[in-house]
Amino acid sequence: MKKINIGIIGFGNIGAGVAKIINSRKSLLVDKIETEILIKKICDKDLTRKRDVAVDKNLLTNDAYEIINDPGIDIVVELMGGINPAKEFILAALKKGKHVVTANKALLAEHGNELFREANERGKNIYFEASVGAGIPIIKSIKEGLVANKFNSIFGIVNGTSNYVLTQMSKENCSFNNALSDAKLKGFAEKDPTFDIQGIDSAHKLVLLTYLTFGKFVNLKDIFIEGISQISAADIAYAKDLGYTIKLLAIAKKEVDELEVRVHPTLLPSEHLLASVDGVFNAIYVSSDLAGDLMFYGPGAGQLPAASAVVSDIVDLVQDIKAGLFRPTLNSKEDSSIKNLRKIEEFENKYYIRITAVDKPGVLAKISGILAKFGISIASVNQKKKVKSHVVPVVMVTHEVKGEL
Amino acid sequence: MKKINIGIIGFGNIGAGVAKIINSRKSLLVDKIETEILIKKICDKDLTRKRDVAVDKNLLTNDAYEIINDPGIDIVVELMGGINPAKEFILAALKKGKHVVTANKALLAEHGNELFREANERGKNIYFEASVGAGIPIIKSIKEGLVANKFNSIFGIVNGTSNYVLTQMSKENCSFNNALSDAKLKGFAEKDPTFDIQGIDSAHKLVLLTYLTFGKFVNLKDIFIEGISQISAADIAYAKDLGYTIKLLAIAKKEVDELEVRVHPTLLPSEHLLASVDGVFNAIYVSSDLAGDLMFYGPGAGQLPAASAVVSDIVDLVQDIKAGLFRPTLNSKEDSSIKNLRKIEEFENKYYIRITAVDKPGVLAKISGILAKFGISIASVNQKKKVKSHVVPVVMVTHEVKGEL
Repeated sequence: MKKINIGIIGFGNIGAGVAKIINSRKSLLVDKIETEILIKKICDKDLTRKRDVAVDKNLLTNDAYEIINDPGIDIVVELMGGINPAKEFILAALKKGKHVVTANKALLAEHGNELFREANERGKNIYFEASVGAGIPIIKSIKEGLVANKFNSIFGIVNGTSNYVLTQMSKENCSFNNALSDAKLKGFAEKDPTFDIQGIDSAHKLVLLTYLTFGKFVNLKDIFIEGISQISAADIAYAKDLGYTIKLLAIAKKEVDELEVRVHPTLLPSEHLLASVDGVFNAIYVSSDLAGDLMFYGPGAGQLPAASAVVSDIVDLVQDIKAGLFRPTLNSKEDSSIKNLRKIEEFENKYYIRITAVDKPGVLAKISGILAKFGISIASVNQKKKVKSHVVPVVMVTHEVKGEL
Repeated sequence: MKKINIGIIGFGNIGAGVAKIINSRKSLLVDKIETEILIKKICDKDLTRKRDVAVDKNLLTNDAYEIINDPGIDIVVELMGGINPAKEFILAALKKGKHVVTANKALLAEHGNELFREANERGKNIYFEASVGAGIPIIKSIKEGLVANKFNSIFGIVNGTSNYVLTQMSKENCSFNNALSDAKLKGFAEKDPTFDIQGIDSAHKLVLLTYLTFGKFVNLKDIFIEGISQISAADIAYAKDLGYTIKLLAIAKKEVDELEVRVHPTLLPSEHLLASVDGVFNAIYVSSDLAGDLMFYGPGAGQLPAASAVVSDIVDLVQDIKAGLFRPTLNSKEDSSIKNLRKIEEFENKYYIRITAVDKPGVLAKISGILAKFGISIASVNQKKKVKSHVVPVVMVTHEVKGEL
C-alpha cells in the first residue's frame, strides 16, 4: 500500500489533535483512501510539555528545517500560528516541493496572496479548511460544492468568543465585562482576547471568505472593522424590543459593481436563522446565484473540530499527490464585474442609534432636526423608561443612509 | 486544452438547468479546471417540448444508447428519474466504462447497493450530490469534509413540500388540506404529492444519508415511515404552547450498538436551529465525533440548485478522469460497532398524544390509569379549551417509552 509522510510544525492543541486523529483513525482512513498517512516528524519549540497524545519521542524535533528539508515528507502541516516564522517555513516548504496544510488565518489574511502565488508557480497546493469555522467544511463547499456559482454575498458569525459574549449578555442580561470574564473562565476566550473582541479575527477570516467567493484579495486595512466592546446589555434589550438580535457579523456583499467588506455588530431580524446561532458556534450564510441561500453551521473552534478539518485537507492532498493532480487555490479569478471596493463613507445601511437625552419637551424634535439636516431620516423611535430622573434613553433606527455614524 | 464530453439522459427541468449552467459558465469553469466540458448528446422521450434553454438540435436524440454506446462520452448524467429504465441505462453506462452522475434518490435508495457495487467493480464512480438537499453540498461534506469522523446521528428536514405545508399550517393557522392546495398553487407540490407528504421521499434520502454516515445500506421496508397528513392545525398550536415546533424529520441515530432509522413528524424544541427552517428549505443536522454538531441549510429543490449540484459532480469527475483517480462510493465501510437495526417496537422516545375527551370528572384519571397499565408515564398534561360543549382536548407528552403509539 502507498504511504504518504507528513510533517507537523507546531505541536500545540490542534497539532496534538491531528496526531490523535491520524493515529486513532488509521484503519478508517486506509479503508477510504487506500493509503497510509504517517507522521514522520513533529516540530515544536517546547518538546517537554505534556500533551494529550502519545507520540514516539524520536519523531520530535525543534528544528522546522528537519521537516522542510526531508525529501521523504510530502505534506507540511503548519499549526504554529503567528506570522513569523510561520510564513518563512511555508515558503521554504513550497520551495522544497511540498504541499502545505495550514490553519493560520492571520498569516493567510495578511500574506495569502504571496503564499498562494508562490504555491501556484511551483504547482503545489495550500489547503486551509481549518482557518475558517474550524470543522465546518465551508471552504470545500465554496470551492468545490458551489464550483459553478457566482456569489451575491457571504456573511456570518465567524468568531466564537465574541458570539459567546453576546449570547451571555443577551441570556443573562449582564455587562460586556462580566460576559467576557465568564468566557475566560470557561476557556472560550484567551487571556488577551483583543483580536476576537475587536473583530480582527473575524476580519482575517473574512479576507479568506471574500477571496473564495469573489476572487478578490482584500487588504485588511481596507476592511471596516468594529468590535463588540461598546455594546451594552441595554442595547441588546432595546434591539430585542425592536425585533432584532445583535451579532458580530463579517460581511462581504456585492452591490451592482461594487464590493462592501466589513465587520461590525449588526442588528439581525430575530427570525433570521443566524440570529439563533448562539454561544461559541459559528455559521456562515452564503448567497449564491444558482444554489440559492445556504447556511453552514458548527462549532467554530476547538481541538478536534479544527483537527478534523486539517485531516480532511491532508486526505485531499494525499489524493492529489497520488493522482498528480494540482488544484490551485488561486484559480478563482476575480469577479470581473467588481469595479470598486466601497469605503465606509459609501456604505448604505440602516443604523441603530441610542441617545441618552434630558427628559424635557422638545428634545426629540431637536434630535430629529439635527439628523434631518444631515439627510438622515428616522424609521422608528422608541423613548425608553427613564434610567435616572430627567435622563431618558432614546433608541432610533434610521432609514438607509450613507456613511459611518 | 483538454475536453471532456458528457451525455445527458433526461431533458426535463433539471436537465435544462444543467445545460444552462454548462453553457453560461464555460469560461468560469475553464478557469477553474482547465478543461472544457462539452455536452455531446442529450436524450429525452419528448424532443419537441419547449425548454428554457437553447441547445443545438443535432445534440438531441430519443435513444439513450446513442449516449451509452458513444466511446467519445466519458460521463453519463442521468436526470430522467424513476426506477426503470433509469437503472438499466446506468448499469449499461457503467459497463461501457463511463462515470455516472445522477439525482435519482428513489433509484439509489432502492437499488443503490447493486449500482454502487457494479461501479466499484468497474472502477467507475457514481456521484449523486443533487439527490439530497439539491444545491446543499451535504454529500461532499460528509464524504470528504468530515472524512475522518464517526457519526452519532444525522437528522433533518429533507423534503421541501412537506416542510412548506407544515410552515403554512403554523403561520396561517390553516388545515393540512388548505396548506397543501396552496403548495400546489405555488408549484411547491406536485399534482400527486403522495411521496412527499407520506414521507417516502424523505425515506429515500435517509437511505442515502444513513449509507454515507454509517456505511449501512438500509432497506426501505426496514424504515419506520409516517407522513404529515394526520397533523392538524390544533396539533401545531398545542405543540407551540408546549415549546415545540412540528417538523417532518428523517432520522438515523446510533445508540450504543444499535441503529434507529425513521421518518416521522417530530416535536422539536422551538429553540433548536432546525425548528427555524421554514418553507421549502431543507436542513440536515449532523452529529459527528470530531467536528461536533454541524448543520447544512439551503433550498431543497429547484432547477438551478439541483443543477448546481449536478455540475459540481461533473467537475469532480472531470478532475478524477484527468488524474485517473477512482474515488469509490462504497468505501465507507459499515460501522462495525452496529449490531442491530432497531425495529419500531424497540425505539425509545417521548410521545405527543392528543385525546378528545368527554368533559366530566375522572376522565383524566381514567386516561392516565390506562396509560400507566401499559407502563407509559406522563411528563406533562394540558387540558385545552373546550371545542364543543362537553368535549375537551387533552394534550399529553409522555416520558420515554418503547414502541409505537
